[in-house]
Amino acid sequence: MKSFLFTIMQLTSEKKRTMSTSVFSCFATLLVFGFSSLASAKTHHLHWEVSYMFASPDCQEKLVMAINGQFPGPTIHAKAGDTVVVELKNSLPTEGVVIHWHGIKQIGTPWADGTALISQCPIKPDETFVYKFQADKAGTYFYHGHYGMQRAAGLYGLLIVDVKEGEKEKFKYDGEINMLLSDWYHQDIYTQMVGLSSNPFRWIGEPQNHKMTIVEADGNYVDPFTVDDMDIYSGDSYSALITTDQHVSSNHWISVGVRGRQPKTPPALAILSYLNNSQSQLELPKATPPTTPLWNDYTRSKSFSYKILAAKGTPKPPKKADRLIQLLNTQNRIDGFIKWSLNNVSMVLPSTPYLGSLRYSLKGAFDQKKPRDRFGANYNVMKPPINPNTTTGSNLYEIKFNSTVDIILQNANALSENVSEIHPWHLHGHDFWVLGYGEGLFRKKDVSRFNVENAPLRNTLVIFPYGWTAIRFVADNPGVWAFHCHIEPHLHMGMGVVLAEGIELVKEIPKDAISCGKTANMLMNQHG
Amino acid sequence: MKSFLFTIMQLTSEKKRTMSTSVFSCFATLLVFGFSSLASAKTHHLHWEVSYMFASPDCQEKLVMAINGQFPGPTIHAKAGDTVVVELKNSLPTEGVVIHWHGIKQIGTPWADGTALISQCPIKPDETFVYKFQADKAGTYFYHGHYGMQRAAGLYGLLIVDVKEGEKEKFKYDGEINMLLSDWYHQDIYTQMVGLSSNPFRWIGEPQNHKMTIVEADGNYVDPFTVDDMDIYSGDSYSALITTDQHVSSNHWISVGVRGRQPKTPPALAILSYLNNSQSQLELPKATPPTTPLWNDYTRSKSFSYKILAAKGTPKPPKKADRLIQLLNTQNRIDGFIKWSLNNVSMVLPSTPYLGSLRYSLKGAFDQKKPRDRFGANYNVMKPPINPNTTTGSNLYEIKFNSTVDIILQNANALSENVSEIHPWHLHGHDFWVLGYGEGLFRKKDVSRFNVENAPLRNTLVIFPYGWTAIRFVADNPGVWAFHCHIEPHLHMGMGVVLAEGIELVKEIPKDAISCGKTANMLMNQHG
Repeated sequence: MKSFLFTIMQLTSEKKRTMSTSVFSCFATLLVFGFSSLASAKTHHLHWEVSYMFASPDCQEKLVMAINGQFPGPTIHAKAGDTVVVELKNSLPTEGVVIHWHGIKQIGTPWADGTALISQCPIKPDETFVYKFQADKAGTYFYHGHYGMQRAAGLYGLLIVDVKEGEKEKFKYDGEINMLLSDWYHQDIYTQMVGLSSNPFRWIGEPQNHKMTIVEADGNYVDPFTVDDMDIYSGDSYSALITTDQHVSSNHWISVGVRGRQPKTPPALAILSYLNNSQSQLELPKATPPTTPLWNDYTRSKSFSYKILAAKGTPKPPKKADRLIQLLNTQNRIDGFIKWSLNNVSMVLPSTPYLGSLRYSLKGAFDQKKPRDRFGANYNVMKPPINPNTTTGSNLYEIKFNSTVDIILQNANALSENVSEIHPWHLHGHDFWVLGYGEGLFRKKDVSRFNVENAPLRNTLVIFPYGWTAIRFVADNPGVWAFHCHIEPHLHMGMGVVLAEGIELVKEIPKDAISCGKTANMLMNQHG
Repeated sequence: MKSFLFTIMQLTSEKKRTMSTSVFSCFATLLVFGFSSLASAKTHHLHWEVSYMFASPDCQEKLVMAINGQFPGPTIHAKAGDTVVVELKNSLPTEGVVIHWHGIKQIGTPWADGTALISQCPIKPDETFVYKFQADKAGTYFYHGHYGMQRAAGLYGLLIVDVKEGEKEKFKYDGEINMLLSDWYHQDIYTQMVGLSSNPFRWIGEPQNHKMTIVEADGNYVDPFTVDDMDIYSGDSYSALITTDQHVSSNHWISVGVRGRQPKTPPALAILSYLNNSQSQLELPKATPPTTPLWNDYTRSKSFSYKILAAKGTPKPPKKADRLIQLLNTQNRIDGFIKWSLNNVSMVLPSTPYLGSLRYSLKGAFDQKKPRDRFGANYNVMKPPINPNTTTGSNLYEIKFNSTVDIILQNANALSENVSEIHPWHLHGHDFWVLGYGEGLFRKKDVSRFNVENAPLRNTLVIFPYGWTAIRFVADNPGVWAFHCHIEPHLHMGMGVVLAEGIELVKEIPKDAISCGKTANMLMNQHG
């Protein structure tokens, strides 16, 4: 009988999913027992090439974006404090590319965050960009494309950061099983980009008599709690301990179902086997796969989210915030096309990345209209918008350096009556504290209910239908950081904002990151 | 009874074709009768935006690359000597784009030829590039994407250049019918790019009692000849006169069949109607559509090509050439992948466009190894290559300015026994004279058979299976010019060379054309 660390990451979004799991079985023991040697940080130098490849993960051949001929991309293993250098060559024939290192804070290297047109120019075909950053904290992370909808094309992989040499995990286990969940579309991403609606998914694992003890969320320890199944949204990552206390020769189903929208696809299935058999030798479990909970059982979903609280020793949030930003999530229309908006502005990105245009104070590089911190106080979140017409804008929030900011993500009714979707949001460059959740419209008085005692640190949050979620963070990382719904088509439809902080403290940005748009013009017109 | 100018242009390439014709019926009278006013050149200023759009040309919806929401793109009408300015905005989400103006010589504006990585940098998403060029000569031209396989994605349209104001056509007609032939794939171009084999097509029009008198080829008058059907290869354009001498209410089939490879798709059909009916009012012709000739009836194909001779008054070629380049067309392998090669080198393009790197003498911008003017004298063109292994290279030929060059395109057996395909080649920046054709291996003595009396001027040529075709041109246009098989997948597989001439005479290249790769670095490092 052994115990294993079971890590689960989510990248899903969409309704035409036909297959949801990629299972990696890496049984290398991770536990490091109290060595007294000094921790010495290492540099991992990787040469990666992004190109197209045929793959048939669900027995239907399709083009995928692969890294070094692998799909999903190679797993990065590092220790906290190590430096990761990825020389990324773009071998796509006509498209730009970037890679975002999801969960890595990029302290001092905001240009390496991998957000196209926010932190850097897209890497041009046949060119190479060097991502160099520190794996700042142990945790279960992943990386993925962040340009157009290249994530859905298969451009993603795992980034596992272990504790420093000589440090101990807070919990013991004998091995590690990583599971990366992702949607799989038969439609190509160019077709998808033209107009699919989308959906969050729920990862439901009923491990057949295996209880899961959740110990980590988004790279932060949480107060352990034990469940039979879990909710996991796009952008989330969790670690759970499981104990192999069943019969040694038995195999067990893992079942993954859709959440938040009536599924049109069957659950995805994986097998948990105690034996290190090859796939061909694997026998199907005798029991039928477990049924996943109803897609609209929100009570169950909320109950899971509410259980996530900080582990002892987790830093506490500042007692008060300097600024409160309320972001109303609505579905709207522009010229008949459906968009997603924040405070009635749908985000579009400029052709010059913000990091460069702000750092060098370039004029006219983006729409200068400042977005609002509030929406109408009388907005009825329970009904479709009275005025569904929206506009586009930069949604760029300039945040005072080192200030403490609260953001309330307010959900509302979509365009159709009685529809309000789940949205998983992801903040770049930061962890934040999840201060609380509420039903209906957020009110000033709700601040008194904020959990400032054991609020969990996360980089993703979820807003439930018709509800709100409150977060707090300290703007202490000079750079420009995306904050957006992690459902890729929602982001593509404008569901995001951009936060700029301490721009004057950003050191010289590598030329390769800004050799497009107005920053390229600036560089070309520079005279010694 | 009226006579019409029937112009036909070809853009096809591939075997998964399901539909081949786009018919434009523009019955505006073109004839201009001897005005004595002075010709005054006009500037046509166009604002174009390339974006994706759904279209169902064969009743199956698919994504296409459209211009201003139109597929095919808008038709440009200009007169000889006019200036065309196209401000092209790239609204594709992640891909670069360029447009090549097929048949326009770009004298003095080599950066406007629209060949990605040869004449310019790909235009980045959300950026705009200005194509400004002179419509130097009356003719039937077209434009199309020239980056990756974007042409197959639907990025093309017509460019009709009429004679100058006050000038007469050499022939009279009452109206004009333009027909642009193109392949239509259900597979997306990204999937295609990974590895389709391909094929030239033959346009066969049997106009049901309508004889066609061919009067123009690739923008040059030819000695008129009359046929029932014609061969047309990718990149070709022809004008034919037809006379509406049948019953006024009858409709007539136009039938288009595949040529050079056993077709797997039915012939494409169009209807020639004398009445200006809307499509819904159109009645199908009573007769069955005409059967197109056998796909492998090469005798018939050759007979058509051999009939194309220069019209009286066409400039004659110089009597002798200063240089003879022989290019052996072979199918080869690199690491098992099938390629097309010239003199056993398969062309790859660098990330810095040649025009900029040559003009500014940048080091290391491309593979400097010079390609050869000859291949082994004992090469057996009737058999598969003895050594099928090939390498990649720049295939850049530096040509002495104002020199006269002969190029022999030598066909050969492909990788499989008893297979030799038809290849339609296209030269940018030039017209050339087609001096002759031959069977088997070209020999020095064949020079004596060259037609220097009434050789037709063209910008496309065809090589027949196991045969050769000889062309002559004067290198009098400063720039870097692609010369390649016009079958898009063949070009993608390396079937092309690049000709550089008079580079030192190229005036200052617009920055937008060279703001990538090493030329961008050069611009960024320039100190006043």
